[in-house]
Amino acid sequence: MVILTLNCGSSSLKYQLYDWAKEETLATGIIERIGLDGSFIKHEAKGHDEVKIKNSCPTHKEAMALLISSILSPEHGAIKDIKEISAVGHRVVHGAEKFAKSLVITDEAMETFRELEKLAPLHIPANLIGIEAAEAVLPDAKHCAIMDTAWHQTMPESSYVYALPHEWYTRYGVRRYGFHGTSFLYTAKRASVLLGKDPFETNLVIAHIGNGASINAVKNGCSFDTSMGLTPLEGLVMGTRSGDIDPAIPFYIMDKTGMSAEVVEKALNKESGVLGITGKWVDRRDIEIAAEGGDERAILCEMIESYRIKKYIGAYSAAIGGADAIVFTAGVGERGPITRKLACEGLEYMGIKIDDAKNEASMTRNAETCISTDDSKVKVFVIPTNEELVMTEDTYALLDGTYDVHTKYKYHFESPAYINKEREAGLPKDLKKWNRLDKIICNPGDRNSDGGCCCGNCNC
Amino acid sequence: MVILTLNCGSSSLKYQLYDWAKEETLATGIIERIGLDGSFIKHEAKGHDEVKIKNSCPTHKEAMALLISSILSPEHGAIKDIKEISAVGHRVVHGAEKFAKSLVITDEAMETFRELEKLAPLHIPANLIGIEAAEAVLPDAKHCAIMDTAWHQTMPESSYVYALPHEWYTRYGVRRYGFHGTSFLYTAKRASVLLGKDPFETNLVIAHIGNGASINAVKNGCSFDTSMGLTPLEGLVMGTRSGDIDPAIPFYIMDKTGMSAEVVEKALNKESGVLGITGKWVDRRDIEIAAEGGDERAILCEMIESYRIKKYIGAYSAAIGGADAIVFTAGVGERGPITRKLACEGLEYMGIKIDDAKNEASMTRNAETCISTDDSKVKVFVIPTNEELVMTEDTYALLDGTYDVHTKYKYHFESPAYINKEREAGLPKDLKKWNRLDKIICNPGDRNSDGGCCCGNCNC
Repeated sequence: MVILTLNCGSSSLKYQLYDWAKEETLATGIIERIGLDGSFIKHEAKGHDEVKIKNSCPTHKEAMALLISSILSPEHGAIKDIKEISAVGHRVVHGAEKFAKSLVITDEAMETFRELEKLAPLHIPANLIGIEAAEAVLPDAKHCAIMDTAWHQTMPESSYVYALPHEWYTRYGVRRYGFHGTSFLYTAKRASVLLGKDPFETNLVIAHIGNGASINAVKNGCSFDTSMGLTPLEGLVMGTRSGDIDPAIPFYIMDKTGMSAEVVEKALNKESGVLGITGKWVDRRDIEIAAEGGDERAILCEMIESYRIKKYIGAYSAAIGGADAIVFTAGVGERGPITRKLACEGLEYMGIKIDDAKNEASMTRNAETCISTDDSKVKVFVIPTNEELVMTEDTYALLDGTYDVHTKYKYHFESPAYINKEREAGLPKDLKKWNRLDKIICNPGDRNSDGGCCCGNCNC
Repeated sequence: MVILTLNCGSSSLKYQLYDWAKEETLATGIIERIGLDGSFIKHEAKGHDEVKIKNSCPTHKEAMALLISSILSPEHGAIKDIKEISAVGHRVVHGAEKFAKSLVITDEAMETFRELEKLAPLHIPANLIGIEAAEAVLPDAKHCAIMDTAWHQTMPESSYVYALPHEWYTRYGVRRYGFHGTSFLYTAKRASVLLGKDPFETNLVIAHIGNGASINAVKNGCSFDTSMGLTPLEGLVMGTRSGDIDPAIPFYIMDKTGMSAEVVEKALNKESGVLGITGKWVDRRDIEIAAEGGDERAILCEMIESYRIKKYIGAYSAAIGGADAIVFTAGVGERGPITRKLACEGLEYMGIKIDDAKNEASMTRNAETCISTDDSKVKVFVIPTNEELVMTEDTYALLDGTYDVHTKYKYHFESPAYINKEREAGLPKDLKKWNRLDKIICNPGDRNSDGGCCCGNCNC
C-alpha cells in the first residue's frame, strides 16, 4: 500500500510517499512559494538525485498537480500510476477538544475543522485547502487527518486551564492545546523501547527543539503538560517567536510605541525569539558561529534559549514526579550539542549527568543515542523524530480498521526490533556535506525558502 | 530612634512605627479609601486596642495628617511628639535598573523615580505622592526609599532578558525586574540562619504566596531569577492576576470579543487568577471551604494554583543546580498547608519530603517552622515575612552611615540569636479568633477594603 502524507502551509506543501509493505520512503519533497512569484518544487525519489523545478503555482491546486506530475515522472518519479496511492494522510494543526485521535476525513469532520478555524487562523485554512486540492486530484484515495493537538488530549484540567476568566474557556475555547503531537508520540514510544519499559509506565520530558519548539511532560506514557498553549507562541524560545513573556508587555509596548495590536502580535511571532535577541539571525548555525567568534548577543541568545529549556526540564520533571529520561528531538534537539549541554548543566542534583563525548558525537538523524553517563539515574536520549511515519501508520491503520487512540493501539515502531531502514542505510547524501559548524540546522531541503521552518515539523 | 515606614498605594496608606533601640513596634495601621467616599483609618498602638476612625481624606495630604494625629493621640497614640520620628522609610515599588539598594531620597532620586513612572504607572505615582505628603508633615525627618526591585538586580542577563526584539529592552526598558524584593531578602537571610549556612553559599527557592504572589530562585544568597517580570502580572496564579499565559491570548480575546486592549489588560489583572478560575472567590479561605464542600471549580483552582507553584519549584531548582531549602512565606505561604502540600507532592525524586503533621501544624505568623521530614535532603521552611523590618533597618542603617547593598551589609535579623520579640510574645489578638478554616488569609487588618491585597506586602 502506497501512502502519501501532506503537510500543507499557507504557501508551502511538504510531502512524503511511503510504501507501507516495503517499509520504505519512495519520494519526499516540498513545493514552496505557492501563490507567490517564483514557486518551485524540490523533489527526491528513491534511486534518483534531487531535482528542483520552477513551476508557477498560483494556488494549492496547481501545487498538487505539480506534486503528482513529479511522483509520476518517468525521469525522477516514484510510481507509475496515481491509482497506486491508496490513501493520503493530511496534517491538521488544530483539532481542539473535538478530536483525540486521527480520523478518516468526512464532510462532518471538514465542517468541524471549519468551526475550529478561529483557533488557528494561520494554519487550519491552509490545511483545509490542501485537503480539498488533494481530494480533487486523488478522488479514489482515502483521506485521513492527523492532528497535532490529539496527543495532548490526555492532559489533566490542571495543566490545560489558564487562570483566566472561566468563560474565556467555555465560550471561546481559550485553554492549552499543545502542538507537535505526532513528534512527541513517536519519540515517547521510542524512548520507552530504549528504556525497555512499558510505555504506560514511562515518565519523560521531551524537548522538540526546531525553529518552532515545544516541550512535553509525559506521565505514564501520556501527555501530561506541554509548553505551547492556545497557539504555538507560548513556551520555549523559538526561531522568531518569543515564547513565555510577561502578558503585560504587549500592552506596555502598544502604549509606548503606538503600535497596533496586530503589529505587536506579529512582532511576537515573527521578530522575537532568537532573531529578537540577536537582532540578526534565526538559524542556530549562524548563532553558534557568531557565539564562537565572541558575539555577545549570540552568546546571550544561546544562554537564554538553553536556560529556558533547562527550566522546563525542571518544571516538567516536577510535574510528573521525576522523569525516567529526558529526550531531545527535532533540528536543534538532534544536532545541537551545545544547547543540550547547557540545558542539562547543573541538573546532577536530580540525577541527570551528560556524557560530554557522547553528546558531542550525537549529530545525526540516523541513530538514536543515549548521551547521559552510564551512572546517570535519568537517561538522556537524542531521538530523531519521524512525524511522517506516525502520519503514515495512522493512515494505514485507519484503512486497515485497526487504528485507535494511542493508548489502545501499538505502533510498529514500538517493537524493540524496529529499525528505521533508511536511516540505518547511511547518511542522506545532503548530510554528508555537513561539517562541525553546520550542525545546528535541520535537514537541508526541509527549510522553506523564507527561512521560516528549519525542521519541517514545527508549527511555523 | 523611632522610624516610620510607609507603603503608599493609590487609595491606601499602610504604616508602621518602630522603636529601633527597643526593637519593638509602637503602632501599625492602614488608611483606606483615600480620595474616595468613606475613608477611614484602622490604627493600633502598643498597649491599646485597635481603633477604626472614619475621617475624610480627599488626598494623601489629609491621610498623612490623620496618621500623625493618630500616632500622637493621647487616647490611642504611640508617641508624644512628632519630632521623635527620626526617619521615614518609603516603599517604592519600582527602581528599574537605576537602584540596586535603598537610598536617602534626594531631589535627584525623585527625578529618577518620575522618569520610571512609565514602568509602573499604577504604583510609582502613588509612592511619590506619599513621599511628598510625608515630607510636608515631617520635614525634619530623613526620608528613605526602599525598592521592591533592588534585591533582583543581581539576576544575570539570561534571567532578565526576554526573547523579544532587543530594542524593546534598550529603548523601552522591557526586561524582567521582579518584585517582593524586601520579602525575599528577609526570608532568604532567615533561611540561611535556619540552615546554619553562610548566606552566600545558600541556594533557595522562595515562594511568596499572598494575593500577589511570586517566586524567587536564590543562588549563593543572591536573586538569580524570579517569576514576576516587567510588571507584577507574570508568573504564579494570584488572587485576581493570571500569571503566565500564552501571549497570544489577549490578541485572540480582543479579536473574538471586540474588547479593547485596555479592557483585556484589566481583565488579566483584576478578573483572572483564582477569581477567574472559580468565578466567585479571591480569598483562599473561601476557596478552601468551597473545595472541602466539593465545589469543582474551587478544587480545580487549588490544583492549578499549587501545580503552578510546583512547576516553578522544579524550574528554579534546575536554574540554581538544586536548592538547599524551599521557603514558603506571605499569607497563603505561611498559613496554607493544603497549597504547600499540593505544591510539594511528588518531589521526593529531588529530595523534598513534606512531614504532613508538621505542615498541618504550621499555621502561624509567630514562628519559623521546618515542615519537611528529618531525612528530607532539601529542607522546607515556613518563614513569616517581615518587609517592614527590612525597610526599618535599611532606613536606620542609611542614617547610621552603615548601610550598603545586602552583599556587603549584615542585617541584625541575620544573627542566629535574633528573635522577633513580638511574635514570641504570642499571637496577635486578631489571630486568636482564627479557627481551622480561617487559615488561608493574611493578617486581618492588612486587607484593603476593596479586597485587593490580603497580605499587605504584595504589589496589588
